[in-house]
Amino acid sequence: MTLIALLDYASVFIFALTGALVASRQQLDLVGFAFVACLTAVGGGTVRDVLLDRNPVFWIAQPSYIGVACAAALLVFLTAHLFESRLKTLIWLDSFALAVAVPAGTGVALSLGQPVLVVVLMGTITGCMGGLLRDVVLDDVPLVLKQGELYVTAAFAGALTAALARPHFPDALVPLMVCAGVTWALRAGSLALGWRLPVYKSRPPRG
Amino acid sequence: MTLIALLDYASVFIFALTGALVASRQQLDLVGFAFVACLTAVGGGTVRDVLLDRNPVFWIAQPSYIGVACAAALLVFLTAHLFESRLKTLIWLDSFALAVAVPAGTGVALSLGQPVLVVVLMGTITGCMGGLLRDVVLDDVPLVLKQGELYVTAAFAGALTAALARPHFPDALVPLMVCAGVTWALRAGSLALGWRLPVYKSRPPRG
Amino acid sequence: MTLIALLDYASVFIFALTGALVASRQQLDLVGFAFVACLTAVGGGTVRDVLLDRNPVFWIAQPSYIGVACAAALLVFLTAHLFESRLKTLIWLDSFALAVAVPAGTGVALSLGQPVLVVVLMGTITGCMGGLLRDVVLDDVPLVLKQGELYVTAAFAGALTAALARPHFPDALVPLMVCAGVTWALRAGSLALGWRLPVYKSRPPRG
Repeated sequence: MTLIALLDYASVFIFALTGALVASRQQLDLVGFAFVACLTAVGGGTVRDVLLDRNPVFWIAQPSYIGVACAAALLVFLTAHLFESRLKTLIWLDSFALAVAVPAGTGVALSLGQPVLVVVLMGTITGCMGGLLRDVVLDDVPLVLKQGELYVTAAFAGALTAALARPHFPDALVPLMVCAGVTWALRAGSLALGWRLPVYKSRPPRG
Repeated sequence: MTLIALLDYASVFIFALTGALVASRQQLDLVGFAFVACLTAVGGGTVRDVLLDRNPVFWIAQPSYIGVACAAALLVFLTAHLFESRLKTLIWLDSFALAVAVPAGTGVALSLGQPVLVVVLMGTITGCMGGLLRDVVLDDVPLVLKQGELYVTAAFAGALTAALARPHFPDALVPLMVCAGVTWALRAGSLALGWRLPVYKSRPPRG
Repeated sequence: MTLIALLDYASVFIFALTGALVASRQQLDLVGFAFVACLTAVGGGTVRDVLLDRNPVFWIAQPSYIGVACAAALLVFLTAHLFESRLKTLIWLDSFALAVAVPAGTGVALSLGQPVLVVVLMGTITGCMGGLLRDVVLDDVPLVLKQGELYVTAAFAGALTAALARPHFPDALVPLMVCAGVTWALRAGSLALGWRLPVYKSRPPRG
C-alpha cells in the first residue's frame, strides 16, 4: 500500500468516526450513522478528486474505503455511550482526522506535479471539506469556521510546510509526516492552549 | 426512449414537484420555484454523473430535462393552493420521487459495469442527494436524515435488491422495477405504519 | 487577456469582497476571511467548469485567481470598519459581482458552442452559486432566494439576453456587456425600487 493510500484510509476511518459521533448526537439509526460517516469520510477526498479530474474518484476505484467508513459507523453505534463527553471526543478525533487528511490531499497534488499554490489548496480543501459537509448537512457545531480557533489555518500551514519541504527530500514520506505534525500541533494548540489569530474586531452593525 | 431515460424523466418531474412545493412554503416567485425545482430535480443525477465522470452531465446532453422541471414548477405555482396540506403532499410525492430516482441511479451504474458496492452507492446517492440539496439550501424539513424514519435505508435496500438481482435477469427491466417497489414499500411503510430501525438511544450530553 | 478571463477576474475579486464582508460579520480571523472569500469567489465558476468538464478548473489552471481573492480578503479585513453599514455594502457589492459573473459563465458556455438553454443555465449557475455557497456555509442572509427580490431572475434574464443576441454580433463583447447591464439593472431595480415578480400568495399551512 502506498503512503497516500495509507493516509487516505486513516483519514477515512477517523473522519467516519467523527461523522458517526455527530449522528449519535442527532440520534439517527444505524443506516443514518453509516450515511453521515461516509459523507464526512470521503467528502474532502471526493472534492479533491473531482477538482483535479482524477478518475475514477478514489472510493469508486477502491470501494473498500466505504467498508472502512461503515465499520467506523458501526463501532461508534455500539460504543458511543461509553464516552463521557461526545462533543469533546468529537473535537479531538476531528483534529486527528484533519492531521491525516491534509497530508493525504497534499500528497495527491504533489504526486500530480501541481504548482505550490494548488498543492496547498488541495491539502486545505481535502482537510476541511469533509467536516464542513458534515456540519452543513447536519446543522451542528460548525468546527471549520468556529470563531477564534485555528482550523483552516492549521490545514493551510501544514500543507504549505509540505509543499515547501518536498523539493528538499528524495521521497514524500518526511514532508507528509511533517505536514501531519504541523497541522495537528496548531489545531491541538488552539484547542488546548487557546492559540489563535487576531479576529476581526469591529462590532458588527445591527443591519 | 430507454428505460433509464424514462426513469430519469419521471424522477426529474416528481422531484421538481417536491422542490416547487418547498418553494411555495417559502413564498418564492415563479423563477424561485423553477430554480428550486431544477436544483432538486437534477441534483442527485448530477452528482452521480460527476462522480462517475459521465460526460456530458445528463441534463446538459439533453436540456429537455430542464424543461420538464420548469413545467413541474409552473404546475405547482398554479395549483399548490388546492392541496389541503402541502407538507403531507410533499412527503408523499418525495417518496415516489425516491422510488424512481433510486432505480435511475442504479441502472446507470449497472450499465457502466460497476461493481455491486458502487452500484448500490450510486442508487442511494441519486435517490437521496436531490432532496438533501433542496433541504440544505432552503433550510426546511430535512426529510433525508429525519430521526426514526426509513429514507436512506429504503434507497439502500432498493439499490441492493437491484444489484443482487441483475445477474439473474436477461435485461434490466425487472430488477429496476423491483428496486422501485422495494424502495417505495419501505419508505411508505415508514411513513404510514411507522416502520423504523432502532435509533441510537443514549441521551445526548449537554455539551 | 481574453474578455472571459477579464470577467472571471472581476467576478472573483468582487465576490471575494462579499465573502470577506460576510466573514467580518461573523468575526472570523484573517485565514477565515480568505477561506470564505475564495469559496464565494471561485464557487460558481468551479461548479460551471465541473459541469462542463472543462479541465483543469479555471483557478487550478491559473492560481492567480486565488491570489486575487486573498487580496480582496485582506483589503476587507483592513477596511471593513470604515463602512457605515456592512450589510448594505454587501448587498450592493453582491449585485455587481452577479452582474460580472453571469456574463463570465455565459461567455464560457457560448465559446464551447453549447445550445441556448445550456448557455442560459451556465450563466445563471455561475452567477448564483458562489453567493449560495457563501450563504449556506455561513448560515447568513440567503440573498439568492430572498423572498420578493429579483436575483435568480436577474441572472436568468441577463444570460438569456446574451444567448439570444450572440448570433447577431461578430464577436462576444457586445452581447456580454449587454448581459452585464441587464443583470445589474434588474437586480439594482429590485433593491432600490422594489421591482419584483408576483410571489406565491397562499398562506402556508401550519403543517
